[in-house]
Amino acid sequence: MRISELSRSTGVSIASIKYYIREGVLAPGESDGPNRSSYGDAHVARLRLIRGLIEGAGVSIAGVKRIVAALDEGIPLNDSFGVAQAAVPLAGSDAPVEPSPDAMERVLAVVEGIGRHHPAIPIAARALDTFAVVGEPLSEAWLARYAEAAAIVARADFDELEQRSDAVDQARIAAVGTALGDVVFQSLRRIAQATEGERRFPSPPAPSSSSSDSETSS
Amino acid sequence: MRISELSRSTGVSIASIKYYIREGVLAPGESDGPNRSSYGDAHVARLRLIRGLIEGAGVSIAGVKRIVAALDEGIPLNDSFGVAQAAVPLAGSDAPVEPSPDAMERVLAVVEGIGRHHPAIPIAARALDTFAVVGEPLSEAWLARYAEAAAIVARADFDELEQRSDAVDQARIAAVGTALGDVVFQSLRRIAQATEGERRFPSPPAPSSSSSDSETSS
Repeated sequence: MRISELSRSTGVSIASIKYYIREGVLAPGESDGPNRSSYGDAHVARLRLIRGLIEGAGVSIAGVKRIVAALDEGIPLNDSFGVAQAAVPLAGSDAPVEPSPDAMERVLAVVEGIGRHHPAIPIAARALDTFAVVGEPLSEAWLARYAEAAAIVARADFDELEQRSDAVDQARIAAVGTALGDVVFQSLRRIAQATEGERRFPSPPAPSSSSSDSETSS
Repeated sequence: MRISELSRSTGVSIASIKYYIREGVLAPGESDGPNRSSYGDAHVARLRLIRGLIEGAGVSIAGVKRIVAALDEGIPLNDSFGVAQAAVPLAGSDAPVEPSPDAMERVLAVVEGIGRHHPAIPIAARALDTFAVVGEPLSEAWLARYAEAAAIVARADFDELEQRSDAVDQARIAAVGTALGDVVFQSLRRIAQATEGERRFPSPPAPSSSSSDSETSS
């Protein structure tokens, strides 16, 4: 197909398509004459991935570059999520402050194995320090339950990956899943907070002039 | 104390302190003469909260304004996390795209009660749509386990809040916890992915010239 058709079928402007080609995240079309290129289904799929990462999960163009480079090179299965993790920096990952030894200990107490060397350990530790600095240190129970929930989510991520037999699908689910999984979880956490808040501290019932009636009716 | 001492004891520059006062997130010092103001412990505590939100959780100054306004006004307990949620927009919350009815249904299937009207529902639904658009639709089991993990985290958040008896502490843990809890969870999720990846797809053991020795030694 021509670039105009590629644009129409993906909803991505021609200028953006050319930008993605210049940035190296989308392969150029096959040249079939001066100023004429043709594009195929692989271009449609790649454009959907790029837009999904940028619009759906707020990944930067630099992050997209690293993710698609990893996809194109192939990703070892045990580190499939790690590649996408490196491409999508965590909030707080560029903080210049060293975590306290105490907070590092507390995080290490709830993780195991290879996870104990993960670059996200000091990020979690610094966040614990911040709670303490504002005068609200968190209990061990809080942290342990966060770790329990994180393990559930990580197992769900890998189960989803293992449902795919194709290496490209596995790499793609890891790449998209790392960034978009955060969005899904954060949304569900906020929804669950609303549900839990209402359960523990029910709002008073709305005033009604016929409350005694309603108890006897129906 | 003088502003210079406030700066020293919090590590926040005098220029930043004056900026926070201008922005209305920090109360001015008590004037005790022309160009002389004195600051107290409440200023130290507030500055720590401001810096914790900005540096620890990437909250914008606009978000800080909304959080401290809520703290100063008092927050109803059932919505204590909701106020901070509104101040800290989710990634993907400004996407212009409508979620598909199918994705909305799927999200609504895993949440209950007041959560079914939460503004984060369409954000989660749009993220599910993005997975589908890139050709990797997610299973119901994946979403159900994310919801299960979100409920664990929300209960941990409220348990932590209920350990505080003071209303200011409760409001503060909700404000800081919404933004920083995301950072802690995302870090732990990435760590858990590394642990789970290694468990399911163990790396081949590093080559060793003395592997037979090491089995007999020690």
